[in-house]
Amino acid sequence: MAVVVRGTQRTDLALVDTLGGFGVATIHEAQGRTGLLASRLRPIFRPVSVAGNALTCEVAPGDNWSIHVAVEQARAGDILVVTPTSPCDDGYFGDLLATSLVAHGVRALVIDAGVRDVAQLTAMGFPVWSKTISAQGTVKETPANVQTPIVCAGAYIRPGDVIVADDDGVVVVRREDAEVVRAACQGREENEHDKRVRLAAGELGLDMYDMRGKLKDRGLRYVEGTS
Amino acid sequence: MAVVVRGTQRTDLALVDTLGGFGVATIHEAQGRTGLLASRLRPIFRPVSVAGNALTCEVAPGDNWSIHVAVEQARAGDILVVTPTSPCDDGYFGDLLATSLVAHGVRALVIDAGVRDVAQLTAMGFPVWSKTISAQGTVKETPANVQTPIVCAGAYIRPGDVIVADDDGVVVVRREDAEVVRAACQGREENEHDKRVRLAAGELGLDMYDMRGKLKDRGLRYVEGTS
Amino acid sequence: MAVVVRGTQRTDLALVDTLGGFGVATIHEAQGRTGLLASRLRPIFRPVSVAGNALTCEVAPGDNWSIHVAVEQARAGDILVVTPTSPCDDGYFGDLLATSLVAHGVRALVIDAGVRDVAQLTAMGFPVWSKTISAQGTVKETPANVQTPIVCAGAYIRPGDVIVADDDGVVVVRREDAEVVRAACQGREENEHDKRVRLAAGELGLDMYDMRGKLKDRGLRYVEGTS
Amino acid sequence: MAVVVRGTQRTDLALVDTLGGFGVATIHEAQGRTGLLASRLRPIFRPVSVAGNALTCEVAPGDNWSIHVAVEQARAGDILVVTPTSPCDDGYFGDLLATSLVAHGVRALVIDAGVRDVAQLTAMGFPVWSKTISAQGTVKETPANVQTPIVCAGAYIRPGDVIVADDDGVVVVRREDAEVVRAACQGREENEHDKRVRLAAGELGLDMYDMRGKLKDRGLRYVEGTS
Amino acid sequence: MAVVVRGTQRTDLALVDTLGGFGVATIHEAQGRTGLLASRLRPIFRPVSVAGNALTCEVAPGDNWSIHVAVEQARAGDILVVTPTSPCDDGYFGDLLATSLVAHGVRALVIDAGVRDVAQLTAMGFPVWSKTISAQGTVKETPANVQTPIVCAGAYIRPGDVIVADDDGVVVVRREDAEVVRAACQGREENEHDKRVRLAAGELGLDMYDMRGKLKDRGLRYVEGTS
Amino acid sequence: MAVVVRGTQRTDLALVDTLGGFGVATIHEAQGRTGLLASRLRPIFRPVSVAGNALTCEVAPGDNWSIHVAVEQARAGDILVVTPTSPCDDGYFGDLLATSLVAHGVRALVIDAGVRDVAQLTAMGFPVWSKTISAQGTVKETPANVQTPIVCAGAYIRPGDVIVADDDGVVVVRREDAEVVRAACQGREENEHDKRVRLAAGELGLDMYDMRGKLKDRGLRYVEGTS
Repeated sequence: MAVVVRGTQRTDLALVDTLGGFGVATIHEAQGRTGLLASRLRPIFRPVSVAGNALTCEVAPGDNWSIHVAVEQARAGDILVVTPTSPCDDGYFGDLLATSLVAHGVRALVIDAGVRDVAQLTAMGFPVWSKTISAQGTVKETPANVQTPIVCAGAYIRPGDVIVADDDGVVVVRREDAEVVRAACQGREENEHDKRVRLAAGELGLDMYDMRGKLKDRGLRYVEGTS
Repeated sequence: MAVVVRGTQRTDLALVDTLGGFGVATIHEAQGRTGLLASRLRPIFRPVSVAGNALTCEVAPGDNWSIHVAVEQARAGDILVVTPTSPCDDGYFGDLLATSLVAHGVRALVIDAGVRDVAQLTAMGFPVWSKTISAQGTVKETPANVQTPIVCAGAYIRPGDVIVADDDGVVVVRREDAEVVRAACQGREENEHDKRVRLAAGELGLDMYDMRGKLKDRGLRYVEGTS
Repeated sequence: MAVVVRGTQRTDLALVDTLGGFGVATIHEAQGRTGLLASRLRPIFRPVSVAGNALTCEVAPGDNWSIHVAVEQARAGDILVVTPTSPCDDGYFGDLLATSLVAHGVRALVIDAGVRDVAQLTAMGFPVWSKTISAQGTVKETPANVQTPIVCAGAYIRPGDVIVADDDGVVVVRREDAEVVRAACQGREENEHDKRVRLAAGELGLDMYDMRGKLKDRGLRYVEGTS
Repeated sequence: MAVVVRGTQRTDLALVDTLGGFGVATIHEAQGRTGLLASRLRPIFRPVSVAGNALTCEVAPGDNWSIHVAVEQARAGDILVVTPTSPCDDGYFGDLLATSLVAHGVRALVIDAGVRDVAQLTAMGFPVWSKTISAQGTVKETPANVQTPIVCAGAYIRPGDVIVADDDGVVVVRREDAEVVRAACQGREENEHDKRVRLAAGELGLDMYDMRGKLKDRGLRYVEGTS
Repeated sequence: MAVVVRGTQRTDLALVDTLGGFGVATIHEAQGRTGLLASRLRPIFRPVSVAGNALTCEVAPGDNWSIHVAVEQARAGDILVVTPTSPCDDGYFGDLLATSLVAHGVRALVIDAGVRDVAQLTAMGFPVWSKTISAQGTVKETPANVQTPIVCAGAYIRPGDVIVADDDGVVVVRREDAEVVRAACQGREENEHDKRVRLAAGELGLDMYDMRGKLKDRGLRYVEGTS
Repeated sequence: MAVVVRGTQRTDLALVDTLGGFGVATIHEAQGRTGLLASRLRPIFRPVSVAGNALTCEVAPGDNWSIHVAVEQARAGDILVVTPTSPCDDGYFGDLLATSLVAHGVRALVIDAGVRDVAQLTAMGFPVWSKTISAQGTVKETPANVQTPIVCAGAYIRPGDVIVADDDGVVVVRREDAEVVRAACQGREENEHDKRVRLAAGELGLDMYDMRGKLKDRGLRYVEGTS
């Protein structure tokens, strides 16, 4: 009963790339602390940073058949996002599939399962965020959905939503919110630069953020240690 | 009641080294997707790749005494494979034991427990696959079996079976199957080279593997997205 | 009801630095195999090694407010040690707070929770041992205790106790034991050098440590393998 | 920025109750093996079985304020479904909140976090599926969304979707699919009764499902053991 | 280097028993949300509730020798609290040790490790909170400290501190705080009774706790759903 | 490439039943503390106790086809032991399969994966030890080995080895050792009865086992607490 949805929308790549420049932590804050994938997804090499349109793909446990199906739906600038229909740590993905994805312009893989050939993937510079690394391969017996909305590592992701991933993790921005989030990130970043300069000069966050009164209201008190 | 078995068989090192060249993922596939150790065993540095004869060793929880016993049974080309008799994350192994193993020709350590001195082990270039890293040392009160068949990280391993380990994990090849597995790996590798070239040129796996008919039979269908 | 204790004692930094030179595994052994923090705390980059006085800080789950409070209590040579009042994997700490800590002479962070901005922290060379990496930020609603005794990753830590951390993990030395532990480490290190030379020359630990009789007493026996 | 959506739709309770009669495993199969919440959610007492309309609620880590907000939105026949915005094991819910929910006709709680007062909840017969049990209470500082779509334990759930929960776990049925799923369950159940009778009489599944040919095609072969 | 401290202080049993009547969740709140042991400690049968003086005991990994030492230090009304010096899931404790503890007036066991003979312990009605259940026994080779301060499941516990444990978990009350905590619990409990009556009558927590204004201040807003 | 081995040996059921009477913990000790399956396998109801001959079965991840194959190989007195070829938590087994197994004389299921229909299995009184409970069903696409030696939950198990399982866990006794282990258990049990009587009378283990001298030799010392 698996379905492949063709011709789904993407977000404009210029906007995607601008979002990618802000990094995961800033985007997550800028969109009200939503959209983060679970922190069990970790990059196979660091440092790394990438952004792209979500190319979504479900896989059966121990079965990577639908990844092959997904490749045909790829467009330049996509990030393949794979979620198993039940939890699985098998190595669904290796250097052959990466070679195929690169040939179709896919920028990275995000997978809530395992990958293998990580030495080759690292040498290729192909970015991967995965739950684990495992040499355990998979079969090709059961197709699953491609380019439908999925839940991956606890986040709801639709085809063409924006994926940004870096050393800190992976975040999804809803396609229709991308422009608003970009603007919010811009504001945060300008603000952060100023703060960094002041903190580097030794100014306390307690003063810079004017926290002392509020802390007192919440019951914080100071006592002297016994020496 | 612990036993040390002396004079166990090894696999010919030329064959071991040939197997090592194929890598863990290829060997695992070539022998019918068997023999993989659990993916919780990870290398302390990457990239890394090694092959050798299994020198098997059990240890009591929090007690590394039998590792000292195992060193005497080592021969050049061995890989020490250590499994605790009940789960334990202590740091059983550090740079002193590594120095001793290297002096006796041991190529690497595979341990379903913790290790320590990882900065020094990394500087020495001594390969280790472990479940964790922990500074928690061990005592020497209870000996355990050396060079008997063991279960390590879910795999059944006998002395002289072939161990291959790389960035993807660890696999065991039964001594009597080593030659057959080598031949099967050889075939897979030639086959993979051709595939890689075609995929890099943009050919789809769906076509290269002739999957479309089978996918249709299994119920996959295509629909158009609403834009 | 949160409290900040001002003017707590520190350990002399010359002594702290000497302890730091021995490394975590040696210190842990030298003080009777006590004081180790749980091995779930891992450095964000390796190799790394640091020592300092504990600047202790509790945080509410998902709330990093008291880290801002702690900065004001910092002195040169401190290591900030943070523990959540209930388990939490959020990213409590990023490059802005690190910039502020560096400006006040803090040498490192040890936190039984998550951190973010790890690419920037790595580029800054600011050492961090954490339970996880997560872009999930925190709020500032609930202050918690600063410079009180805490339990962090299973270890009891008081302000001014000595923290030593390296690739193997993190250990605490009680302020009043620092000198005795230093002396014990010194003895162990001299002893280890001699052992390393003998083991590198191929001498067996079984002989060097005179273990054969004791092993026989504990029931170890040798049998010949069937070839 | 938290939002409460008032006046969301529900599924007809007669249909909800009919679905509840089939049980989680049957529903999950009948809707194409989708909609299951992660198996880490376990009931606090067994046996237990319940169905209702999802009353969705996000909570900040360590903060149960929005559960109080959710109570006001409850209608008879609802099941409260709670998900933290970052993973948290605190005890968000106890017997006072259960008393309040019962007074407003809520049938059960599903929460991807911890609960407490489980002795009292069990004595009340109030069904709860939770990730853990913990006496660690929560604060009331940060409101979060109520009656918006959420991801709970890996499943996407909207207000008024049908929740069915029993000893095997928790499943969500999309509101618009409820009638179709009911029909599919009906068919499966009739079919299962017949199978059970035949299997109890000793008929082999191999024969009843006519599997022998297909197994042979997939390479299964029979050999005689050596006795 | 293990030590047994004899003649440590206890808390008055009348006070201990009064505290036991309040339950873990109430005590935890009453003492400022401190003192809770990690929620991985679970009772082997439910419902269950007990209070007593902490009789503290460290054990080496896989070695229960010091539990035998601890029995001699027991007094009527004690609860044995056991922590391994490194994490271990072995079954340290079974029905023989329980028989011995009961003979010396010990009321329960709290252990951050495994236990066995749980069918017999349940039949005896001997309360146990443990991290796991395991038939894996232990050796008697390495003594460890008895009646010294310990960290157990993340909490700092001294001999004679009050331990209260029930279906929700385990909490420690510092000996010197016991009377103050008792008074605070008393106040909370009276307050809770009134709340329960009002909530059962359908009054909303939003009104009873006067939360609406504060929620609005924190940005909560209400919108109408689209039907 | 899956294989079914027919006509494998069993252990005499009278001997199996006698072993079953001793319980898992006693057997584990009696055979030198070997043969225990990992403690993650837990019974779905308690108390429970059973013994039988291992009927071994591998399954692909998310695929229970070979369980259907295994039923045909069952004989009265067997216990079905199932291990996935890569880790999987799906619900491989429910009440229909249990009905079939009971019809062929199978006494219980041991599975290093998930099961479902646990309310019905409990009502039937069919004993199951599993890694988890999950309503997530499985497909029937990939057969795997039946009645070959397997590794299940870390233990090496051959067809016809004796499986004993109770509230404490699961242990395997090698077929050829069954008689020797029975005799050793007999001895331990008689010995334990006497100990239990003496401990219940208040005799200390320190005296009964004559431990005081050995403890002193290992460095245990007694000090007086400060009151």
